[in-house]
Amino acid sequence: MRSITSSENQNIKLYRNLADSKKRRRESGMFTIEGVRLVSDALAENVKLHSVFVTESCMEKIARGETVIQREALDFPAGRSDTDGTEVFLIPDSIGDKMSSTDNSQGIFAVCRGLDKPSISDTIKNGGKYILLHRIQDPGNLGTIIRTADAMGVDAVFLAECCDLYNPKTVRSTMGSLFRVNVSETELDKAFPIFENMGVPTFAAVVDGDAESLTDCDFSRGGVVLIGNEGNGLPKEVSERCGKKITVKMHGTVNSLNAAMAAGIIMWELEK
Amino acid sequence: MRSITSSENQNIKLYRNLADSKKRRRESGMFTIEGVRLVSDALAENVKLHSVFVTESCMEKIARGETVIQREALDFPAGRSDTDGTEVFLIPDSIGDKMSSTDNSQGIFAVCRGLDKPSISDTIKNGGKYILLHRIQDPGNLGTIIRTADAMGVDAVFLAECCDLYNPKTVRSTMGSLFRVNVSETELDKAFPIFENMGVPTFAAVVDGDAESLTDCDFSRGGVVLIGNEGNGLPKEVSERCGKKITVKMHGTVNSLNAAMAAGIIMWELEK
Repeated sequence: MRSITSSENQNIKLYRNLADSKKRRRESGMFTIEGVRLVSDALAENVKLHSVFVTESCMEKIARGETVIQREALDFPAGRSDTDGTEVFLIPDSIGDKMSSTDNSQGIFAVCRGLDKPSISDTIKNGGKYILLHRIQDPGNLGTIIRTADAMGVDAVFLAECCDLYNPKTVRSTMGSLFRVNVSETELDKAFPIFENMGVPTFAAVVDGDAESLTDCDFSRGGVVLIGNEGNGLPKEVSERCGKKITVKMHGTVNSLNAAMAAGIIMWELEK
Repeated sequence: MRSITSSENQNIKLYRNLADSKKRRRESGMFTIEGVRLVSDALAENVKLHSVFVTESCMEKIARGETVIQREALDFPAGRSDTDGTEVFLIPDSIGDKMSSTDNSQGIFAVCRGLDKPSISDTIKNGGKYILLHRIQDPGNLGTIIRTADAMGVDAVFLAECCDLYNPKTVRSTMGSLFRVNVSETELDKAFPIFENMGVPTFAAVVDGDAESLTDCDFSRGGVVLIGNEGNGLPKEVSERCGKKITVKMHGTVNSLNAAMAAGIIMWELEK
């Protein structure tokens, strides 16, 4: 384990650039994770790591067995499939504080090499159950939806024109589910023909009293539910492209379900 | 409409004290709201207001009809039932920026006199459907659950040892549903005998494979579902006091549903 003492070190700079810049994440295919929970999930799910940074305080906790991360997990034994180039750095707490996006840094960070997620055409099968998110803007909502997709056992989540999946806020809100759920970015013009060819019914989630109630919906043949933007929902031209319009009937005002909650309830009905 | 020019004005100080201090909110029974949406909901729901503060920029927008708040709504005509003492102040943008809890202040604020929420004994009826939240700690979760309770049409939400309902973050996350949903603070030792006397079945939401699946649950006689703390769930002595234990069956890890999402799905099944 090498020590880094300067915040000008290029590995530290790489971490901070990736955390700050969507452009850098896109160019490199890499992204960052922070915190004991996310790093331990990444280790457990054999996510390919470029580098891991551990503060001195955090390393002491790990050595004393006070975190869920085992000391041995940071040794990257030759048997691990994704060891190529993973390097672990010990850093001063002061650098950790600078890297952290939270007030109370847990002192552990990693640069991930990217996730091997299958493409939409390799993912979709007849009878599968999916959601497609269109123009979800809020990283926290996107992360919560992916986390809930994990809980519900949805076969895959497709993203069309959403905010960046690898934004640190999105990654944090997934609580590690990012490593377990099939998530692919796609375009509607690419996705619709695939759904059609594979016989996957398409459902548009809309706020419209005339649409079929979610509770009456037959998902026994599987299907994909399209869920739109937080403020505006699905554009009309998208919802009209779907085989059926469905709605979560509610009391209160139309604003009383947030996008993540509506998506959660839809996935619950899709899967149960 | 009076103008305030100093941030040392006692009405401004009152607002800031109430926003910052739970103790002050408890002592006075008053709390603060911020933003066009919340203030307009408070006006629409006839919430009793002590004072309203509008920045010069916001007042210009209101005058030009660029917000959902009508200029006349700030006149507090004699016909309004809750006009006693409501005063509207025009403030400089610079004071608004200091009062705001967000980076992009909308320039409108109010001190609410408190909500006339019925007590738990006046609320509970045989056949009603309720949730009781125990030790929910995160203001955002509490607010989201109340917002979702509004969407689902739950008869009331009871709070036992939760974070402060009138914390500005909680109030903001309710998105105005705070003014529409029956919410009462209570204690378990007070609530259980009332549920029993009124013949309201009690259900403990637990993470336990042996508990009855939420989907098999019969809510036709109504009932109250108890939902526990984000990290620890319900204490054993609380769940054992309930008539039945129920669980949201899930894939993924036990952490893959957050408290608000689990509560949302439970309310969905309770009400549908």
